[in-house]
Amino acid sequence: MADPVKVALLGCGSVGAEVVRLLHEQSSDLTARIGAPIELVGIAVRRAGRDRGTLPVDPSIFTTDALGLVKRDDVDVVIEVVGGIEPARTWLVEALRAGKSVVTANKALLAEDGASLHDAAVEGGADLYYEAAVAGAIPLLRPLRESLHGDKITRVTGIVNGTTNFILSAMDAKGSGFSEALEEATALGYAEADPTADVEGFDAAAKAAILASLAFHTRVGAENVYREGITEVSAADVASAKAMGCTIKLLCIATRTVDGGISVRVHPAMIPRTHPLAGVNDAFNAVFVEAEAAGQLMFYGRGAGGAPTASAVLGDLVAVARNRLSGSRAASESSYASLPCRPMGEVRTRYHISLDVADRAGVLAAVAGVFAKHDVSIATVNQSGRGDKALLVIVTHSAPDAALAQTVSDLRSLDFVKSITSVLRVEGE
Amino acid sequence: MADPVKVALLGCGSVGAEVVRLLHEQSSDLTARIGAPIELVGIAVRRAGRDRGTLPVDPSIFTTDALGLVKRDDVDVVIEVVGGIEPARTWLVEALRAGKSVVTANKALLAEDGASLHDAAVEGGADLYYEAAVAGAIPLLRPLRESLHGDKITRVTGIVNGTTNFILSAMDAKGSGFSEALEEATALGYAEADPTADVEGFDAAAKAAILASLAFHTRVGAENVYREGITEVSAADVASAKAMGCTIKLLCIATRTVDGGISVRVHPAMIPRTHPLAGVNDAFNAVFVEAEAAGQLMFYGRGAGGAPTASAVLGDLVAVARNRLSGSRAASESSYASLPCRPMGEVRTRYHISLDVADRAGVLAAVAGVFAKHDVSIATVNQSGRGDKALLVIVTHSAPDAALAQTVSDLRSLDFVKSITSVLRVEGE
Repeated sequence: MADPVKVALLGCGSVGAEVVRLLHEQSSDLTARIGAPIELVGIAVRRAGRDRGTLPVDPSIFTTDALGLVKRDDVDVVIEVVGGIEPARTWLVEALRAGKSVVTANKALLAEDGASLHDAAVEGGADLYYEAAVAGAIPLLRPLRESLHGDKITRVTGIVNGTTNFILSAMDAKGSGFSEALEEATALGYAEADPTADVEGFDAAAKAAILASLAFHTRVGAENVYREGITEVSAADVASAKAMGCTIKLLCIATRTVDGGISVRVHPAMIPRTHPLAGVNDAFNAVFVEAEAAGQLMFYGRGAGGAPTASAVLGDLVAVARNRLSGSRAASESSYASLPCRPMGEVRTRYHISLDVADRAGVLAAVAGVFAKHDVSIATVNQSGRGDKALLVIVTHSAPDAALAQTVSDLRSLDFVKSITSVLRVEGE
Repeated sequence: MADPVKVALLGCGSVGAEVVRLLHEQSSDLTARIGAPIELVGIAVRRAGRDRGTLPVDPSIFTTDALGLVKRDDVDVVIEVVGGIEPARTWLVEALRAGKSVVTANKALLAEDGASLHDAAVEGGADLYYEAAVAGAIPLLRPLRESLHGDKITRVTGIVNGTTNFILSAMDAKGSGFSEALEEATALGYAEADPTADVEGFDAAAKAAILASLAFHTRVGAENVYREGITEVSAADVASAKAMGCTIKLLCIATRTVDGGISVRVHPAMIPRTHPLAGVNDAFNAVFVEAEAAGQLMFYGRGAGGAPTASAVLGDLVAVARNRLSGSRAASESSYASLPCRPMGEVRTRYHISLDVADRAGVLAAVAGVFAKHDVSIATVNQSGRGDKALLVIVTHSAPDAALAQTVSDLRSLDFVKSITSVLRVEGE
């Protein structure tokens, strides 16, 4: 039996504690699968005094000096489950440059400055694995980074944030508004006290950047991702989607564009209820991948939570530990393609627009004229009377997003348009 | 740039031709991803004279001498898409022992004698990859063999045969019988002229053996898999399932048993329409994985066809080519657990039984007595009148399969049981 692989754990919250528990419980299986035992040599925490009596480790391995732990000569692998940009970046760059392999769940850091980590990994000849950073336990990054490497991925569409999916599922099921659904999510522990990162789409945008980088072999940062959260999604939008046989999801969408670039965006969108992603409810995540040869694929599972995230961390740990034992390392970041990332205004999308208009002659012609002016083609239009008003529901063909946004803006300024009750992008055929 | 990785292709049917096409089309991307070009140096075919004019290769690389091609000194990697036990086994064992990496889609050979291939791979220090053998393009084996290695998989439930799923989907949608649905599948090219391997469950059983081996780190052969096909599934069964809010699928199910063993089986079963697998229709495949920490996961996509299968083959090719360039190899077969495989009779299952009985006093008591005699607990019972007969629909709690089968057998022999109209196992909560 080979010498133990020595592991430092940075962070001991819900994920970290679950990593510790699994390392203990699965000890003999992990040893058999790796060919050497795993030895947890240190755990860095923020507060030393906190009671961690139930964790199956020697209390003396806790430390508040994370950087000191990372620098220890006897550490082979560093697991980071703290999150945030700093000080995590300093710790991980230090570890990778020193040749220590890193397993991290830190999507924010990867999206903000993945380049620093990848470069440090190359410099130190170390492995950088981060399956847990996107879609929790769902084995997704490895398939993208390895299984589909003989294929050309054309599009990735994902539900990658459990909090917003829980809220939108509740709004869809109960017809409630955003605030009410957020309250319920908070009460049940699905939303944090400050839900900004989730409901404004920052979390999903970070994951979208990571997915797009892997899918298209190019570097995509959080700054390249167009982002809209779900705070503006109303009960009227949900009702409007239902009337169309659709449901609303916060989607991250990464696609190749016709001009050889890519676009990466996060926003709420209507998708038909027959789409495989439409049935992904509550806190579940799923990612739908389209590739030229493979066709349509979907990966589904729990996107968050201590145990599922820890499962992904340990899968990565087995891989990096094996690599160390065999003296090899995984393929480095694949970013050879260097594709330009198109701004949202140029991306071709489809809009669903519901508006209340005065019910009089010439209104439909005037409305249609606004679409024509911006070269936006209308796919379906449905008019129904509401007393002295009429409800117009229009779905467009695909057009540049800027033209669609300008169309909506122009419609708002027309005096016979009483109100625009719902504007949503439409995805899925 | 490193020297080319030289590849021999065995077989040039629909999958092989697609591999050739993709190698050509994706040439520059593959080179960038691997770090060296791929060079196709030979293609072994059965009939040399066949016109393959549209394939983008030099016609002189075709040969009918597969073994000679495998033995060539300049071959680094062998791709096998012929299928069947022999001569494929001889070719691949020869290649692996000589240190040549193998990428194969041959599920029958892996299930029949995977041990010979794995042993030859260890002997030759070569890689053996076979993502395309199960569920076509769905990246499934790599997640099982790598991503979930830090977790304990408890159960794998899959729809892994497109032909039978197409037939059962048609029966469900149209209420047609098996023969009629098979005819339609044959006409549309979803079933082969001799559909035995598909409809009798042999194909699914081979895949079940491969999945169980990877999930449980133990060797499982086709002979360990209990197998029932779908030829006995009737329109009455489908109607019965519908009445229960269920649909019928040919499932492959691999589970850990309470006594520390495993069971692996393939048979038609009713599952609730709310189960994620219930929505997997037509020729699509999906595999539902349950693990202790990760929870429920599902992988969905096309299970067959030239292009999807070729996508999986090329993903494996990129991996083995990279390994060759870095002088490393993937982890060997993980079969340390050596778990005993329980016979079907001992496996705990649930049955749904519909029977026509004479409508007279004492009948229900007598029927219930048969269940009690075999220690089978009844979960639900529903009786409805049909003139002088009554229809009894009974769903059991889980019990050893042998006890359930014996219960059905005893019911058949009762004089007041007019007919047993449907017997099906029930899966999913």
